[in-house]
Amino acid sequence: MINKIPMTEYEERFKKIQNILKEKNIDVLVVFGTDSEPQNLIYLSNYWPQFETSAVVVPKDGSPVLVIGPEGKTFAEDYSIIKKIFQVIEHRESSEPNYPDQKLDTYGEIFDFVLNGGKIKRIGISGIAIIALPVYEAIINSSKHAEIIKADDILINLRMKKSKNEVELMKQSSKITLKAFEAGLNNIKPGMEEVEVSGFIVGEMFKNKAENYAFTPYILSGKRTNQAISRASHKVISKNEPIQFSFGCRYGNYASSIGRPLCIGKMPKKYRELVNIGIGAQEQVISSLKPGIQAKEVFTKYWEFLVNKGYSNYFLYGPCHGTGVMECEHPFLESDSDFLLEEGMTFQVDIFLGDNEFGLRFEDGVLITSEGADVFNDKYCEIIEI
Amino acid sequence: MINKIPMTEYEERFKKIQNILKEKNIDVLVVFGTDSEPQNLIYLSNYWPQFETSAVVVPKDGSPVLVIGPEGKTFAEDYSIIKKIFQVIEHRESSEPNYPDQKLDTYGEIFDFVLNGGKIKRIGISGIAIIALPVYEAIINSSKHAEIIKADDILINLRMKKSKNEVELMKQSSKITLKAFEAGLNNIKPGMEEVEVSGFIVGEMFKNKAENYAFTPYILSGKRTNQAISRASHKVISKNEPIQFSFGCRYGNYASSIGRPLCIGKMPKKYRELVNIGIGAQEQVISSLKPGIQAKEVFTKYWEFLVNKGYSNYFLYGPCHGTGVMECEHPFLESDSDFLLEEGMTFQVDIFLGDNEFGLRFEDGVLITSEGADVFNDKYCEIIEI
Repeated sequence: MINKIPMTEYEERFKKIQNILKEKNIDVLVVFGTDSEPQNLIYLSNYWPQFETSAVVVPKDGSPVLVIGPEGKTFAEDYSIIKKIFQVIEHRESSEPNYPDQKLDTYGEIFDFVLNGGKIKRIGISGIAIIALPVYEAIINSSKHAEIIKADDILINLRMKKSKNEVELMKQSSKITLKAFEAGLNNIKPGMEEVEVSGFIVGEMFKNKAENYAFTPYILSGKRTNQAISRASHKVISKNEPIQFSFGCRYGNYASSIGRPLCIGKMPKKYRELVNIGIGAQEQVISSLKPGIQAKEVFTKYWEFLVNKGYSNYFLYGPCHGTGVMECEHPFLESDSDFLLEEGMTFQVDIFLGDNEFGLRFEDGVLITSEGADVFNDKYCEIIEI
Repeated sequence: MINKIPMTEYEERFKKIQNILKEKNIDVLVVFGTDSEPQNLIYLSNYWPQFETSAVVVPKDGSPVLVIGPEGKTFAEDYSIIKKIFQVIEHRESSEPNYPDQKLDTYGEIFDFVLNGGKIKRIGISGIAIIALPVYEAIINSSKHAEIIKADDILINLRMKKSKNEVELMKQSSKITLKAFEAGLNNIKPGMEEVEVSGFIVGEMFKNKAENYAFTPYILSGKRTNQAISRASHKVISKNEPIQFSFGCRYGNYASSIGRPLCIGKMPKKYRELVNIGIGAQEQVISSLKPGIQAKEVFTKYWEFLVNKGYSNYFLYGPCHGTGVMECEHPFLESDSDFLLEEGMTFQVDIFLGDNEFGLRFEDGVLITSEGADVFNDKYCEIIEI
């Protein structure tokens, strides 16, 4: 049983990245992340910033460095597997404190350090979709003649296939999530607010040594079950109304997730019918996952299933998305996904069906093996009436 | 007892903003936020995005609109007090799904809508420190001749002084945090991992109807207590070592926080001495808060206290920061803070002291009243040995 990725595996990750940087003729890769988008930072450094933003800077040769804001030094020194740390004002908290008494570093100094003063021609950036404007400007102003390359694909491709250690952490994470699910089932009562139910669930995650939830739990009831993204609210839960549990934890920094619709008492007939469609769709999608097939084939079979059952108007998005350091990551299985499934890829099978009246989600993590899909948790794929 | 800000108060906020936009000759204000930096979105719309980013667009005349990513529609419709919602690809999740089958909006269309097709000369942006590059580019490309104004000060100034409703929510939030603190005290045992203690604390928050934690709880032990920003880890807690509790919850979307050092068994002598300095500093700072004085006076008195006691080398930052929708927000009380304290401002008195061996934080919320500081929670400001 491990609770973290061993150091040797981080070294392999950097070796792979540096080979790609040489191929692509990129001098240095800046990998940006935030408190809510820490995936690539965690993957490369085990550092997950709080309040501040951060970056890992990987030169094409030599050692990577970590860049943090003005306040996170002792925190980063404790967590980061990268020991050389720079502090830059542009990575500060959004409230923009001044730090009048602190000496800080610049991206110019950082690039000089990692490249030994060598000239910088091409800077790759990973995290272009989320990079904070001042950090981006600090990078381009540090090297005005350098070309900026959107380099998100490097980390995306690297992270898609999981190692044995990663799968072990994901399976442990899934086990804790299942315990949290049962804590929710055992404690939910009519008259509780949705947020109160979260207490049993998140409490159970931490008590089982999860480091956090994977996302704010969705405990949704009534019409609110039709929200594909949401949070628990102050709504009071009643008997005989649709209820949706969707949540997961993080363990060893790997995310897991479970999604199940349920009811206190008897499900309304129309909802029960939808739940049966969800159960069937979940089974159908899991059975169609295997290495070598094109991702959009899985989509097409799912879509045909919904059309045949007369539920295509409940469709919102494709039936699977990648999972790992984040609960939702590349790749997505949509109508235009032409990549091939490979052994070692991990997905959340994520069946969301909803209309204006209500909705549901069945969600479970799977590993693609030579046999097909190894499901991390196959319990409670049934009508749940408590 | 309220659990949300009434609609009339949102309307007053928009009226104040629109008056400032007219004064500053800004045609439209774009207020950007993310999952981890939702403060201004919550303040203006009650919408807190999950996975995606979001913006509130306020024209100098007429009604504001909410801009979200491709997935959050039913979620935003449920939470947002702004009912006109646009969906824009640049606000999508960081994993950049394509949404091949969805019709989306553009910033050009949004500006046309809010300005009734009127010409746009000056666009204010709030959240420049955190705005994601693609959103920024979508805004500037929509109106190539418009001038971009960094307009963070509008929301910062508006949010610094709190209304009665805001203070009521903050006091309720503090009460829940105190209960969570006691749940932690009552359940912590030697041999537990730090993350396990989080379970009792966060569980108690949600069970008391908090909507979330205010930040991932810091349960820190041993040397780790010297981390000013951190998270609970897998470190096992022992008897007779320093332990730091720092956490808070969100209620009605207002944050609270408590910080206390403690020990299972007898505190090490040197740590006990530091804790007594912390208690004294906390009292001294609270007693120096009153309307009309310059913020840096509070800093200077705190600094002199540390110097006189011989603990200035434990100093990291000033003794107070603003608090409200976020646990940490403007303004900061540092050596260069020349603003005046005013009735209605709220602060976290936040005494962090640390060196290479260990550290501590005393933290409590206060409201500035005509009398001085109204402390939201004044319990447990003592040596805590359990």
